[in-house]
Amino acid sequence: MSGFEALLSETAEAVEVALDSVLSPKPRPGEIARPERLVAAMRHAMLGGGKRLRPALVAASARLFDVTGEEPLMAGLAVECIHGYSLIHDDLPAMDDDDLRRGRPTTHRAFDEATAILAGDALQALAFDLLAQERTHPDPAVRIALVAILARASGLGGMVGGQMLDLAAEGRFGPGGGADEAGVRLIQSMKTGALIAASVAMGGVLGGASATAQEALLRFGESLGFAFQLADDLLDVAGDAASVGKATGKDAAAGKATLVGLMGIDAARARLASLVDEADAALAAFGSEADALREAARFVVLRDR
Amino acid sequence: MSGFEALLSETAEAVEVALDSVLSPKPRPGEIARPERLVAAMRHAMLGGGKRLRPALVAASARLFDVTGEEPLMAGLAVECIHGYSLIHDDLPAMDDDDLRRGRPTTHRAFDEATAILAGDALQALAFDLLAQERTHPDPAVRIALVAILARASGLGGMVGGQMLDLAAEGRFGPGGGADEAGVRLIQSMKTGALIAASVAMGGVLGGASATAQEALLRFGESLGFAFQLADDLLDVAGDAASVGKATGKDAAAGKATLVGLMGIDAARARLASLVDEADAALAAFGSEADALREAARFVVLRDR
Repeated sequence: MSGFEALLSETAEAVEVALDSVLSPKPRPGEIARPERLVAAMRHAMLGGGKRLRPALVAASARLFDVTGEEPLMAGLAVECIHGYSLIHDDLPAMDDDDLRRGRPTTHRAFDEATAILAGDALQALAFDLLAQERTHPDPAVRIALVAILARASGLGGMVGGQMLDLAAEGRFGPGGGADEAGVRLIQSMKTGALIAASVAMGGVLGGASATAQEALLRFGESLGFAFQLADDLLDVAGDAASVGKATGKDAAAGKATLVGLMGIDAARARLASLVDEADAALAAFGSEADALREAARFVVLRDR
Repeated sequence: MSGFEALLSETAEAVEVALDSVLSPKPRPGEIARPERLVAAMRHAMLGGGKRLRPALVAASARLFDVTGEEPLMAGLAVECIHGYSLIHDDLPAMDDDDLRRGRPTTHRAFDEATAILAGDALQALAFDLLAQERTHPDPAVRIALVAILARASGLGGMVGGQMLDLAAEGRFGPGGGADEAGVRLIQSMKTGALIAASVAMGGVLGGASATAQEALLRFGESLGFAFQLADDLLDVAGDAASVGKATGKDAAAGKATLVGLMGIDAARARLASLVDEADAALAAFGSEADALREAARFVVLRDR
């Protein structure tokens, strides 16, 4: 098990415990009441599953600067809440209309559409609530920098915008447009890449990274995000549903343009290898303290789900 | 025209201009691209309408401490983005299923459901993006305090939680429950009251209010939020659709329990008058610098839409 895999498993455990507490039915100061059904839906979506890749990336990146413990965990929880809300909303009938997620009913299937929409909305608010807490970092300037990164990476020019372009490319609002390689690459960099890169950047902010270090982390995060999506596309083509944990071959069935479809499997695998090299190159200025991040790039490429 | 009405009209103009710029199709630093259709949906929902009551409350409250200009405007835009996203999502077929809002097609009618969900999601992210900007306040501690207030007031223990309880009270998830006066009061304090009280509190934070002053603003905000909702219920019963700008008599038709329905019109009017007294009492320690807020309470009660 690599250092990153150990960090991933340690982070997954800490995230589970922390989310269980954050999503307690008991209202916090400044809250009036927490509706039982809404809490249940948020817990359904957030607990008991997921690799917790993004929180582990925050932790691996913060570790570069010897920052460990509660601070990267809190920031990681915030990113995970954003990721989780996007899955709930993307699964809705009006969007990708999925019944299963990680082998369990999606939130709107386990509950109902209205509850699922609201659970997603509340998770987004919770993400920023978590970042605003002193436990995330004693310095308000650090906390507000985290808010800025996460808000921008997840909003109309990032994750949400990427989902919008993805639906458009499927021809949902007229003839599909973004089916060439540059178009698919743009969609993926927004829909998935932005939040992965933000996770790495947030670790750097927690560690008080210099502008040069932050720049290196940004380049690393972009290569990593791209590699993540390419690996995901390859799994969709070549993986089997049991190990991937969701239906495979879905993209092709949906007539969805993917990089693997456009490049072919062999070229995609070669590109994946070169992305790992690019990720390594971005970290060249760091020593062994960056090993967890280097291993993260390998993990993302070699994972089977 | 009272001082608050002048402030309201001045704020409405500034909000319109600022939103037009914030919702430009051009990506900002840290954003990859802004999908045209998503920007169009966000503009449809946010521009050309609305009283901009919440931004005016931020401004009126900040004015208590001689703070005017861009800072309360930025904070007000953030609250307005949260308010706007909640209207888009509440109007969805899975929620209140409304075709009209301010006399124009709701966002999912003018576009489609997926676009409306994403436009709401992106507006929520935009709200926190705005608060994180230095233009909102030079001190990061003030900005993060605004994030904390807005996230908590709008999340599962505030606005979103209130919408959830409202749907539950309508019997959406089984037999309706919250139909007594305390239940309706709880729903309203969460669904509408929390964001109105947050607007007032945010003005106080921008003004560097003392703990005592902030406490007074909190009490004022709570009375104001309650009064706002009661006035809204009375308009639904007694107003006509043309001046209210949306269908009236809707609550009764939906079999929805309202305070007016439970108390009767006369008792509701009397309660409304006593809420204005309570709002005034909360501001007793302030001099004429609080007149805009005092007038805000009267405006909320006497408005005809």
